[in-house]
Amino acid sequence: MSKDLSLLTRPVTSSLLAALLLGLGGLAQAQSSVTVFGIVDAGVQYLKNGDKTLHLLSTDGQQSSRFGLRGVEELGGGLKAGFHLEGALNPDTGTADSNRFWGRRATVSLISDAAGEVRLGRDFTPTFWSISRFNVFGTNGVGGANNLIYGFDGSSSSAKTIVRSDNSVGYFLPEKLGGVYGQAMVAAGEGSDGKYLGLRLGYATGPFDVAVALSETDNPGGKKFKVYNLGASYKIGDAQLMGLYHVSKEGAREQANYVLGAIYKIGAGQLRASYVHSENSGDLKKGDYSGNLFAVGYRHNLSKRTSLYSTISRVDNSDKGSFVIRGGSAVQAGQSSTGFEAGITHSF
Amino acid sequence: MSKDLSLLTRPVTSSLLAALLLGLGGLAQAQSSVTVFGIVDAGVQYLKNGDKTLHLLSTDGQQSSRFGLRGVEELGGGLKAGFHLEGALNPDTGTADSNRFWGRRATVSLISDAAGEVRLGRDFTPTFWSISRFNVFGTNGVGGANNLIYGFDGSSSSAKTIVRSDNSVGYFLPEKLGGVYGQAMVAAGEGSDGKYLGLRLGYATGPFDVAVALSETDNPGGKKFKVYNLGASYKIGDAQLMGLYHVSKEGAREQANYVLGAIYKIGAGQLRASYVHSENSGDLKKGDYSGNLFAVGYRHNLSKRTSLYSTISRVDNSDKGSFVIRGGSAVQAGQSSTGFEAGITHSF
Amino acid sequence: MSKDLSLLTRPVTSSLLAALLLGLGGLAQAQSSVTVFGIVDAGVQYLKNGDKTLHLLSTDGQQSSRFGLRGVEELGGGLKAGFHLEGALNPDTGTADSNRFWGRRATVSLISDAAGEVRLGRDFTPTFWSISRFNVFGTNGVGGANNLIYGFDGSSSSAKTIVRSDNSVGYFLPEKLGGVYGQAMVAAGEGSDGKYLGLRLGYATGPFDVAVALSETDNPGGKKFKVYNLGASYKIGDAQLMGLYHVSKEGAREQANYVLGAIYKIGAGQLRASYVHSENSGDLKKGDYSGNLFAVGYRHNLSKRTSLYSTISRVDNSDKGSFVIRGGSAVQAGQSSTGFEAGITHSF
Repeated sequence: MSKDLSLLTRPVTSSLLAALLLGLGGLAQAQSSVTVFGIVDAGVQYLKNGDKTLHLLSTDGQQSSRFGLRGVEELGGGLKAGFHLEGALNPDTGTADSNRFWGRRATVSLISDAAGEVRLGRDFTPTFWSISRFNVFGTNGVGGANNLIYGFDGSSSSAKTIVRSDNSVGYFLPEKLGGVYGQAMVAAGEGSDGKYLGLRLGYATGPFDVAVALSETDNPGGKKFKVYNLGASYKIGDAQLMGLYHVSKEGAREQANYVLGAIYKIGAGQLRASYVHSENSGDLKKGDYSGNLFAVGYRHNLSKRTSLYSTISRVDNSDKGSFVIRGGSAVQAGQSSTGFEAGITHSF
Repeated sequence: MSKDLSLLTRPVTSSLLAALLLGLGGLAQAQSSVTVFGIVDAGVQYLKNGDKTLHLLSTDGQQSSRFGLRGVEELGGGLKAGFHLEGALNPDTGTADSNRFWGRRATVSLISDAAGEVRLGRDFTPTFWSISRFNVFGTNGVGGANNLIYGFDGSSSSAKTIVRSDNSVGYFLPEKLGGVYGQAMVAAGEGSDGKYLGLRLGYATGPFDVAVALSETDNPGGKKFKVYNLGASYKIGDAQLMGLYHVSKEGAREQANYVLGAIYKIGAGQLRASYVHSENSGDLKKGDYSGNLFAVGYRHNLSKRTSLYSTISRVDNSDKGSFVIRGGSAVQAGQSSTGFEAGITHSF
Repeated sequence: MSKDLSLLTRPVTSSLLAALLLGLGGLAQAQSSVTVFGIVDAGVQYLKNGDKTLHLLSTDGQQSSRFGLRGVEELGGGLKAGFHLEGALNPDTGTADSNRFWGRRATVSLISDAAGEVRLGRDFTPTFWSISRFNVFGTNGVGGANNLIYGFDGSSSSAKTIVRSDNSVGYFLPEKLGGVYGQAMVAAGEGSDGKYLGLRLGYATGPFDVAVALSETDNPGGKKFKVYNLGASYKIGDAQLMGLYHVSKEGAREQANYVLGAIYKIGAGQLRASYVHSENSGDLKKGDYSGNLFAVGYRHNLSKRTSLYSTISRVDNSDKGSFVIRGGSAVQAGQSSTGFEAGITHSF
């Protein structure tokens, strides 16, 4: 067992370093208490956007590939401190996020069993969680509702806070509130854009789960970017049904999204199906700008940590719509987009 | 316990890879013996530089946020090998240092209990350690003496070796020399600037600690950048007093810095106060170019790994001085700068 | 032992996060099962290319410095899942590969004891392995045969697949085939260049090891870049002999390389010697474009994880040849190049 212990032994030179850095003997002597974790998700993908086809070694078809470190320290009296550092990676090319290595999340927290958690740093926004939680394909792969939802949010004039926010202070309700969960986030603009305020409130009990969320972001040029959504899920036997209504607004522009989905458990596998309808209005509307996404997939769990998956999806557009399965070419208005992928997800 | 062991088990495919890479069977078969460590420090900050105010989600107010790996291997006969890889990170935005991921330190060492340590790579310079060690706020936050000291060092014409040096070979005295400690560093210019030579010698016994350090760096344009400092600390009861005299020179330019500080222990907390006076002379001197920094702070330790802190500081300038609390706007000559921050430091 | 367990304990907040990200309760609950590994290799180097000399703090003289994570999960029934993330680092400057943090390898695998391994992601190419495996200095340092071999491969018109390929699907024969080993790799061009197909087949038994490999890459401009090689090694007493014949071709250009080497074990040390002859023909040939590399080195193992090394090498060119020891200046045609290095390699 001596080999095991070596992993956690603090070498003399490093204790010295820590003491030197602090200028004080021993006070900040770090003890290793860290979980190294991650996901590698890769597969093969076929995309046909309009007339153009593409074969890819794809990534993140089921879950976003990542590398992270996290830990929680018991401080006594129901108080904990915690940290979470997590960044994206791309197994197809070996790249990480070169701009934000820890860009998925970088936070430090003070957590009280009774009073909840205060969290500082870069974190997911409250409004993002409902997109992910009430969507059978999450926000990944050819079947993800984000292919349509981010068609508005992801455009050049939209906010950086669709998924995450820099410079945030977050508050999370404690866990034991009889099924009620919730969070609030404020983020500093620091003299520029990006100032954010968001809230989420949910209730989960037995087979039911329902949540509402809303946010406002200061976009460049003094524009306000607003999001609100309502999501719910219901388990019945081996099935789970999900629904999400999600609206994004900036000035006169608005996109409303309706997401329906179902998961059906078959032994170690899951059948998943999703339908998304998105409508743009306001200054993007030139006639009928809308689109539909249909997706069907199967996931086979080889273990809790490893699964194989396959998904097929199709996006159809109205006359003026140009929604697309992300990752390939753009389409012309009214064209459709088809995607297929098969891959493996491995967590560590 | 089988779960624990899995962390250290070397998978077959990877042993094979190592063997292939080496072209030799088994000689370099790595065994995991690594400590994963880091710090996440975030808070809220208010800065007023001249007339301009700024609210920030701040980082590194008490210690620099970081991620690192390190380890020491016993080779027998009082000999050890060691490595240390450590880089900066910013929890407010999830960024790492995109130019130098392991930029805080990247070294490999051979360490003899009797003869000392030889260390190769990128490392802190000997002259840096006294700035950090004899300064109650270290080199972090609104109260750090580096706000003034780096006013010269950090300017465009100064050396890259204020804190660290690339391409270095360092030697450290062994630990058991009756309180004497010391190090020397040489760094290669590699056909460009940055050639460095530095020394540090100290003596720590009972409540006393005193050290001198000096260095010379080849700056761009053939200029010599020279640093020397003398620091001391003394513990008396629950108090610790610190003083540092630090001088930086390049040609006719010179900055002398006088740092005084005190730490007073109150239960699990510490009161800290610091005064810094800095004077520029030589080609920067247009009349009286000097400044003073006053800082008071309180640190409350929730554990050895986690603490809360709050600091308030003020920089006053002479008629021609433009020292500033770093992180906000520049000030005009003679203007003052005020800073406040409160945050949390968590080590892992 | 409670300290040990903390490393592997999954904190509550993170389980929750994983569940939220997946949108499904508990299915992808990650358990830590990861080996953190790496190498730090640094030394001092002297290079004389033509008339120009250079002193360096060098890296990777014996093995490439790196940081990585890997793991294998038993799925039952002789099936395993595995991942491998590995990137380069430079201890002289603290940099990582800023373009591809995990650029050495980023793969996820499904491994069957009976049927072999399927591997997706960025990985070493089959043809690379013989350059490394049948070369006493691997592809590192002043003695590496790659100094000449990459003289062609590494030129501007050559393929990105000399060492690794993006977007690859690899297949590896299972391990228990009576000494036969092999792999195949295909990589997608994804609508651009870089499409790759490579094969390697070898046989290792007792003191013998022999392998052939070949590949074809779609280079920019529709050019085909082709590589083939044949390598062998033989152990006799304390000695090991190695030979490699390696050819790179693109259109009329061709470079043939002949590598011979020997390793002789002396207690905890190894004497190593290598001779390389390389000939360019085709559009690079202006008269006789060829070069020879002679290298001798000694490696002293302080442990399985740590060794000291020293290597001296010389490159001589024909009238038109301009091969060089990599890392310093270019040479004029016909000039020679001399290199010396001494360093330490530490694995963790």
